[in-house]
Formats: sequence, C-alpha cells, structure tokens
Amino acid sequence: MVLGRVYLVGAGPGDPDLLTVKARRLIEQADTVVYDRLVGEGVMNLVPRRAERIFVGKAPKRHAVPQEAINELLVRLALDGRRVVRLKGGDPYVFGRGSEEALAVAEAGIPFEIVPGVTAACGCGAYAGIPLTHRGLATGVRFVTGHCRSDEELNLNWASLADPQTTLVFYMALMNLPEIQQKLIAAGLPPTTPAAIVSSGTTDAQALCIATLADLAERAAERDLPSPCLTIIGQVVSLAPELAWRTAAGPVPDGLPDMSEAVRA
Amino acid sequence: MVLGRVYLVGAGPGDPDLLTVKARRLIEQADTVVYDRLVGEGVMNLVPRRAERIFVGKAPKRHAVPQEAINELLVRLALDGRRVVRLKGGDPYVFGRGSEEALAVAEAGIPFEIVPGVTAACGCGAYAGIPLTHRGLATGVRFVTGHCRSDEELNLNWASLADPQTTLVFYMALMNLPEIQQKLIAAGLPPTTPAAIVSSGTTDAQALCIATLADLAERAAERDLPSPCLTIIGQVVSLAPELAWRTAAGPVPDGLPDMSEAVRA
Repeated sequence: MVLGRVYLVGAGPGDPDLLTVKARRLIEQADTVVYDRLVGEGVMNLVPRRAERIFVGKAPKRHAVPQEAINELLVRLALDGRRVVRLKGGDPYVFGRGSEEALAVAEAGIPFEIVPGVTAACGCGAYAGIPLTHRGLATGVRFVTGHCRSDEELNLNWASLADPQTTLVFYMALMNLPEIQQKLIAAGLPPTTPAAIVSSGTTDAQALCIATLADLAERAAERDLPSPCLTIIGQVVSLAPELAWRTAAGPVPDGLPDMSEAVRA
Repeated sequence: MVLGRVYLVGAGPGDPDLLTVKARRLIEQADTVVYDRLVGEGVMNLVPRRAERIFVGKAPKRHAVPQEAINELLVRLALDGRRVVRLKGGDPYVFGRGSEEALAVAEAGIPFEIVPGVTAACGCGAYAGIPLTHRGLATGVRFVTGHCRSDEELNLNWASLADPQTTLVFYMALMNLPEIQQKLIAAGLPPTTPAAIVSSGTTDAQALCIATLADLAERAAERDLPSPCLTIIGQVVSLAPELAWRTAAGPVPDGLPDMSEAVRA
C-alpha cells in the first residue's frame, strides 16, 4: 500500500479567481476533498466529478464534526493511499484550527504540505476598498477572533486592542458585535472610529456596511447581513468610498470623520 | 484614445505557485508591468516578452523612485491606453503603500482593480511550519512594520505589543532587531518567548532561524540572512520543528520552552 499525502490548502476568501495557482492544481488532482462551510461554492465547483467530497462543517440542526474526528479522518484517508486536499476558508494558519490538523497528520507520519491562501482580511479589504495599513492612518493591522463558546465572554485584552493607529479585523464576530463595540469604546477607542462589515466578501453577493464604532451593531442588525461576515475597525475604513471598485461603498453615516486631509498630508 | 486600466496586484510571498489565478492571468495579459525589488524572480519570469517592464524599486547606489513619481507613472500609462499591472510583493494593502497608488489612480478617474495576494506572514508561516494562530498559544496575530527612516526610532506602542497571547509579525525589521527585542522585553514580553526569522520565505532559498526573543538579533547576525526577511515572535514558533515540511526547521536553541503539553491540552 502506497502512503497518500495530505494538502492543507487555503481556499481563499470566496472568489475562486483568488485561489492560488497551486491550490487550484491540487484541487483538480485530488482523490478526496474534505471541506467545511467557509469554502465558497465557486471553489467547490472546481472539484472534479471523479473526486470524493467529504463535508465536515456544521450542517443546519446538526452538531459540527468534532475536531478530533476530522484529524483522524485525514490520517485514515492518507493511510488508504489517497491524495487528500483539506480545504479551509481563507488561509489554513489564520484561525480555523488548521495547525491542529497539521500536527495530527505530522504525528501520524503522513507526508503533508501547507498551501497558504488569501486570508479574509486581505481579500475583503481589497474588494471593499479598505486598505489594512495606510500612512498616517494605520501603522499596522491585527486579526482577532470575535467568536467564542456561546456561554462565555470574549476573552480579549481590550486595553491593548484600543489603539487608534492599528486596524482591527475581527473574524466571525457578528454575534458579538454589541460586546466588541462596547468594550472597545470603554477601553478608549473613539466612538466615531470608522467601522465596516463585509458580508460574503469577494463573491458576487458581496455587501458592505459602513458605520461608526458606536452604531456598528445597530447598523449591522438593520441590514441583516448574511454570513460569512468580516468586521474591520479603524481609520482606514474612511477610504472605502474612494477606493471601492467592485461594488459601491453604500451609504456613509453622518458621524464619520473626513480623513481626506490626513490622507493627503 | 481608449483609456487603459490599472491592476494593483499582490505578487505573493515569492513562490510563483502562490500567485492567485487572477494575478497570473493579468500578468500574462499585461501591456506594462511596473514592479519593485520585493517581487520574486520566479514571478517576473511569467511576464510575457512583448510586455514592457518598468522597475521602480531601489537599485544599488541609487535613490528609490519617489512615491509621487510612481503614482504619476501609473496614471500616465493608463491614459496612454495601456493595461498596467502594478506588482507589489505580498498583498497590495498590507504595508508597501499600495493604497496611496490606488488613491492616485482613483482621483485621476482611471478604472482600476485591486487583486489581493498571499501576504508574507501567511506565506512564510505556512512554508516554515509556523501557524499564526493556534488554540492555547495565540488568540490572534498582529502585523507591524519594523522599518523606519534611518534617523528615527521605531514609533510603536510597545506596551500594547507585549501581549504573550498574540503572535507578532514584523515586516522589514532586520535592521531594527536589537531595538525591537530590547523594547519588547522592557515592556514585559518574556525573554524566552520563541522567535523566528524567515529569509527568502517560500522560495528555494528559504532559510529559517529559530531563537528566543532575548537572542534573536544575535542569532540573526551570526547567520547573515539575505533579504527579504520576516520576523515572527510568539509561542507558535515552538511548533516549527514539528510542522516544518518544506525545509528542516534547523537548530532549536536550548532556552526554548517546550510547548508540547500546552498544544495537546
């Protein structure tokens, strides 16, 4: 029996044109594709008919497949001699527990490769007109998970996060927006800080909701934005009306500070 | 005269196989490619012979082309009716001033598109075996520029950066490693925090230097690592010996804490 191989592959932010060349080739050559709900439909359409598809995401009214079971599945498929492509939305090593799968495969002695992808922050920023850094507006960017178990508070260092010179990107934060907004303002981030939610970013269904930090949760609730959603908070959001090219930036709230002078300084 | 179009395209971290499908197609169809020194040789080999190539990076013993001149060049080429691909290393909206070029093009009324790319942090992390987040080791990741004008100190919020639960990625930090190391330790980050430098990440010349925060600058100086270099600081670095697949992780310093229990907890 020949040992197979596991490719842990970033599926990018949604638009199949944003797959890497390597990811696309591996999908086309796969024996088995293991995927979850964050992998876009456009990407799944590239999986050849002859390949086996295994869904390990959370289906409606069902529990998610436990992480341990996914790890074991990947090992078993490779021991069966299969070329396994494990597709993860975005980049496999930014949230999403890809490194736990990599460790399981490595420990089992299975040959593996990690294929990085365009992470949601970069994809949504580019397609929504929001640079993650910009001279005079943001000297850096920070990715944070806005998701936690339903019975827990978000365990984040709010004082450290409340830095007006750093763009904050919250992954999977829609359920916790009221808490995020309130804690950031309490920690000192100005309520007028521009903020945006990008829904279904980079796909044909992309929608952009621009607000201030103070009314972000309210604006998002009004719009009833479909998942997946990415939340970007920081002065760079004020550039979206000028830099939107894929879709219009939509209405800009009255309270949003005008950054045009800072940008051109 | 037909108006051209400017594509601001992320060239990814180095390996041409990590270009997006869209980026590769646009390069193959370009009339003019404007590039700088962070765009890998493997990527430039994909530019067709018939296309004009314009280098706007800093050549040895010459000054860099001023940003304003690059902005004007992009506008002029598009006004001449050309399909212009402006290649930026990594992702166009993570450092590198891509958004200033986008604003200049937008203000001139030139049609434009932004094509996100695999940023160096994701590319180097994947190929060096360093996840940017991992349960129990890092709840988030932060990208910071480690570069400043030669006559200035780095203007960073060190107290905010010294968070042991956040992976820190410094872009272009090689010259300022002694200052970064000293300021982070002074702000409270443990001197035993694992740290790594990835040189020429994702290319055939990739080299990995693993150290502790306290001896990072010294280890890097010993190795005389070629540019570009990416610096990753955080507990996730301790996974590199297990997760390296492209090249071996190299020697691990004695002082490095063993994270294997935390990882499996």
